[in-house]
Amino acid sequence: MQERVAAISSTLNRYPDREFTALRNLLADYLSGVLRREGRPTALQAPVPSSISPDMIWAANGSNEVLFHILQAYAGPGRSALGFGPSYSMHPLIAQSTGADWIEVPRGADFAITVDHAVDAVRTHSPDVVFLCTPNNPTGNSTPLEVIEAVYDATDGIVIVDEAYAEFAGPDFRTALSLLPGRPRLVVSRTMSKAFAFAGARLGYAAADPGLVDGLRLVRMPYHLSSLTQAAAEAALAHPDSLLAGVQELSRQRDRMVAGLREHGFDVVASDANFVLFRGVADPALLWTRLVEKGVLIRDVGIPGSLRVNAGTDAETTAFLTAMAEILSTHPDTLGRSPQ
Amino acid sequence: MQERVAAISSTLNRYPDREFTALRNLLADYLSGVLRREGRPTALQAPVPSSISPDMIWAANGSNEVLFHILQAYAGPGRSALGFGPSYSMHPLIAQSTGADWIEVPRGADFAITVDHAVDAVRTHSPDVVFLCTPNNPTGNSTPLEVIEAVYDATDGIVIVDEAYAEFAGPDFRTALSLLPGRPRLVVSRTMSKAFAFAGARLGYAAADPGLVDGLRLVRMPYHLSSLTQAAAEAALAHPDSLLAGVQELSRQRDRMVAGLREHGFDVVASDANFVLFRGVADPALLWTRLVEKGVLIRDVGIPGSLRVNAGTDAETTAFLTAMAEILSTHPDTLGRSPQ
Repeated sequence: MQERVAAISSTLNRYPDREFTALRNLLADYLSGVLRREGRPTALQAPVPSSISPDMIWAANGSNEVLFHILQAYAGPGRSALGFGPSYSMHPLIAQSTGADWIEVPRGADFAITVDHAVDAVRTHSPDVVFLCTPNNPTGNSTPLEVIEAVYDATDGIVIVDEAYAEFAGPDFRTALSLLPGRPRLVVSRTMSKAFAFAGARLGYAAADPGLVDGLRLVRMPYHLSSLTQAAAEAALAHPDSLLAGVQELSRQRDRMVAGLREHGFDVVASDANFVLFRGVADPALLWTRLVEKGVLIRDVGIPGSLRVNAGTDAETTAFLTAMAEILSTHPDTLGRSPQ
Repeated sequence: MQERVAAISSTLNRYPDREFTALRNLLADYLSGVLRREGRPTALQAPVPSSISPDMIWAANGSNEVLFHILQAYAGPGRSALGFGPSYSMHPLIAQSTGADWIEVPRGADFAITVDHAVDAVRTHSPDVVFLCTPNNPTGNSTPLEVIEAVYDATDGIVIVDEAYAEFAGPDFRTALSLLPGRPRLVVSRTMSKAFAFAGARLGYAAADPGLVDGLRLVRMPYHLSSLTQAAAEAALAHPDSLLAGVQELSRQRDRMVAGLREHGFDVVASDANFVLFRGVADPALLWTRLVEKGVLIRDVGIPGSLRVNAGTDAETTAFLTAMAEILSTHPDTLGRSPQ
């Protein structure tokens, strides 16, 4: 990557490739590999694509900009977007920044979305765009493909499946990429920030029907992806295995935290992401402060009785679980009741 | 620059500096230097700042994104933006993409904007945002500071002075940066794409009152400037003289083209940019094709009886002027009448 970005830096007098052709090809290859490794979802009736073609790919400066392009093209004033909360806090902001109305439908028990619940919400509100974040930020749980299929069938709008954390998911997770054939209103968005450990490069991407992707050309700024961004992402995608090497370790640390927090008596949401939401915290702000005092920084994401902790190194997991054990032994009242 | 981007590429697992502090400081230094070199505009009554402070700086992925942030924050549905055409084709598109109405007021003779003309337009239409592109794309002529002052006084909206081509301007050009003190609704936007020969890096920037700049934080995407973009731009701004070295040569080639085209009998707009608009072309599409046949590619920007040619190398100027001489000798009817 150092060689590629150094080489490209002497050609910055030229505008970038507006169509990011090389990057598009590599992203298509990467997603095709994801599909091949997952194999055919057993419960799925629809045809499964063997590959994602380059004309199905979009990319932008972070997945937020990818989502913004989609909402600029397909939402906007007089239209509406619907999401199932709690979920990624940028979804409503991005939708509203295009002038669209935001409709938030609460998730069910354990933050799950069921077919009946989702179809009812979509039929009731008739949104122009539906967001399904899976694995969901900040709760970590995933949504089964049959829910995505049912939502797609229940709406005539765009369905965005935000799979920013998909690479961290366990073996039961199935990507919605397999649903793309025959569904021209479906978009699957991903990012290189998380699993590729590439947040500094700002590269989000999505796969969808070529016609839907073509609409995004109308709203993006000319030359929105710099030559440096394209070169760095191309270099990373030429070696996906080494960049994704951290995923397995982060998933292992996540599973350690899930087990440890459950042992401590917390109600832990099954997580397919690189973070864990644990409930049953009597006073999240107080526990957050006590952890900071012990040198451990986690996140209060504003869900009552809950805190979110990110997976890191083995030593960081140990430090977190040790700090939690110490706090619980000194303050057993840290444990509260989980809200339902 | 190669060293800087290579070094930063091993830290891309971290999110970028959201506030681009180092880059902001360097851009402030660069613009402060521009002000110092220009000295005090003799005709100007208002105080002239001795420097631009970092909290007056904004930057984004290309000046289009800078303008988009300004329009997102200060235009949008139910508001309007006004420009003096013909001018940069992205101004209306960017304004309308935020939901704002676009008002286009024609420029006067020789594409000039006079105080009376501009003040009358602004008072008639009461726009929320006014664009003044100087040097103007695609005509090349500049707008005097007294017009910008008068427009500012005539409106209670935002005034955007787009100085994308300012570094190419002749000695009579004065930057609107000198007008910033006491004018909290004034924005001066620039880009590193043109004079810095840095189009591949996508770095646009602007200077304005810190309060106006602060409003842009509400609309930009989190971490909109990648670590690579910041590092490359920082490296470039550490050596502005070498990057700007091409400006003098391009200006010399522009002046050669102006002189050569006038000798051929064309009506050439005085240009402060790195391109020349020449009028009095009987059939622009036909002349464009004949130049392409001789291996010379210029631009038909859609202004009747006109074509635009970009400054390049000495050899490119010679090739263009030679091709024009050949075409005119074979087809004297290439010359037409200038529209007024």
